[in-house]
Amino acid sequence: MSARGSIVGKVYLVGAGPGAPDLLTLRAARLLEAADIVFHDALVHPDILALAGRARQIDVGKRYGKVSTEQRFINRALIEAARTHSLVVRLKGGDPMLFGRAQEELDALKAAGIECEVVPGVTAALAAAATLKVSLTRRGIARTVVFLTPRVGKGESASEWLAPALAADSVVLYMAAGAATSIAASLIGAGKPGATPVALVESATLPEERRLFTTLEALQSAKLPPATGPVVVCVGEVFRESSFKEIDHANLMREVSSARL
Amino acid sequence: MSARGSIVGKVYLVGAGPGAPDLLTLRAARLLEAADIVFHDALVHPDILALAGRARQIDVGKRYGKVSTEQRFINRALIEAARTHSLVVRLKGGDPMLFGRAQEELDALKAAGIECEVVPGVTAALAAAATLKVSLTRRGIARTVVFLTPRVGKGESASEWLAPALAADSVVLYMAAGAATSIAASLIGAGKPGATPVALVESATLPEERRLFTTLEALQSAKLPPATGPVVVCVGEVFRESSFKEIDHANLMREVSSARL
Repeated sequence: MSARGSIVGKVYLVGAGPGAPDLLTLRAARLLEAADIVFHDALVHPDILALAGRARQIDVGKRYGKVSTEQRFINRALIEAARTHSLVVRLKGGDPMLFGRAQEELDALKAAGIECEVVPGVTAALAAAATLKVSLTRRGIARTVVFLTPRVGKGESASEWLAPALAADSVVLYMAAGAATSIAASLIGAGKPGATPVALVESATLPEERRLFTTLEALQSAKLPPATGPVVVCVGEVFRESSFKEIDHANLMREVSSARL
Repeated sequence: MSARGSIVGKVYLVGAGPGAPDLLTLRAARLLEAADIVFHDALVHPDILALAGRARQIDVGKRYGKVSTEQRFINRALIEAARTHSLVVRLKGGDPMLFGRAQEELDALKAAGIECEVVPGVTAALAAAATLKVSLTRRGIARTVVFLTPRVGKGESASEWLAPALAADSVVLYMAAGAATSIAASLIGAGKPGATPVALVESATLPEERRLFTTLEALQSAKLPPATGPVVVCVGEVFRESSFKEIDHANLMREVSSARL
């Protein structure tokens, strides 16, 4: 395959799921157990990494822009690992194909002639819906669901995400830690009613999970302390249901200000 | 809790994942092993049901409108089961909170005072992305992803799904078996360029899986035989990448007509 003649390995891009170790798939667990080397994101649960008992483990995590390993370095490291190890796992939080920058790794591996396979995982939005007990779709209320990130990359417009967010019935915003109030302001500014229900979920499925129900209007002016875990912001009529109705709103907003969200 | 005084059970709404038995989560596998009774959809893999060795198994599947168990019957059966069994599993294809009509079951159980928990699963769109090796998001190309169904319910407009489908970068249509050509025609009619890449995936992650790459223009006039498994239709620039470039288009369209899609 290569002038160096030693390519034997295969790389698996594996979804680690939303947080709780038992929300890993059976296939992911088996691959970790068999792995020779694992490159993982910063937020993967220690119990998941413990499955990869025989593997060398390398943290290439990007976390709130703090400990950031350059993508080009990761691509090169995966290619090198496949030349010296049989079973290479690249373990990503949630699902690899949603906000995981997987395409850059897949393209680099393909260009280097290295075999690659993707193992899907449970994504954060579905974990949030499960913990909230709110279906993202609902007959007569929500037929379309959009996943997006308000984070802005190079050459991208900050407001690009608004059109799909306004058009869809249920909206889940990823990597929204710290952006919740500005998301609410942007949506209201674009014409979304202030009374639209919102649910914020931090560290979904983990013991430290926090859930908050509010509205765009209230969220817009809320003072939220910095998050310590990943946050998804869920917006739409479906989030008005169940738990929301039972919660005293004044109490709730006191809870918002004292929460870590 | 109830005049009948015998509520002891808890109901778990569990995602069975996209098809392959090892794409089940560890939590789902453990719950099935411990379950007393399992109500499952029609398309759940036999190896997944085999995990529930000690449980009574009841098929309440809805499948292409053929064998359809009424939702009200399912709701009543779950409530009755929780009054006579400790661990009740309601097993749904993919993830329960996306196109699974889970809210109707959650609301019925809550109204009956029955404890309930949701276990998320790998949804079909992410399984399709994994098998296609195409990330649904990609820097500079796709920041927003919409999931929707073109199926029309009572009192819903047939074209409601078009606005979010046009606004988002990547679109995955669920329950699209038989609707692929009309989806393409609707999108072109609404102004989406005919050259927009499309990938169709039938029975994702199963041995009988079929993948087809095409464009809206070609799909619009394609004669597709009826599908035998669930189909997702993926539309967007990201699907132009990788495998698409390598495939001879004329050959491909011959394959389309002979395929089961």
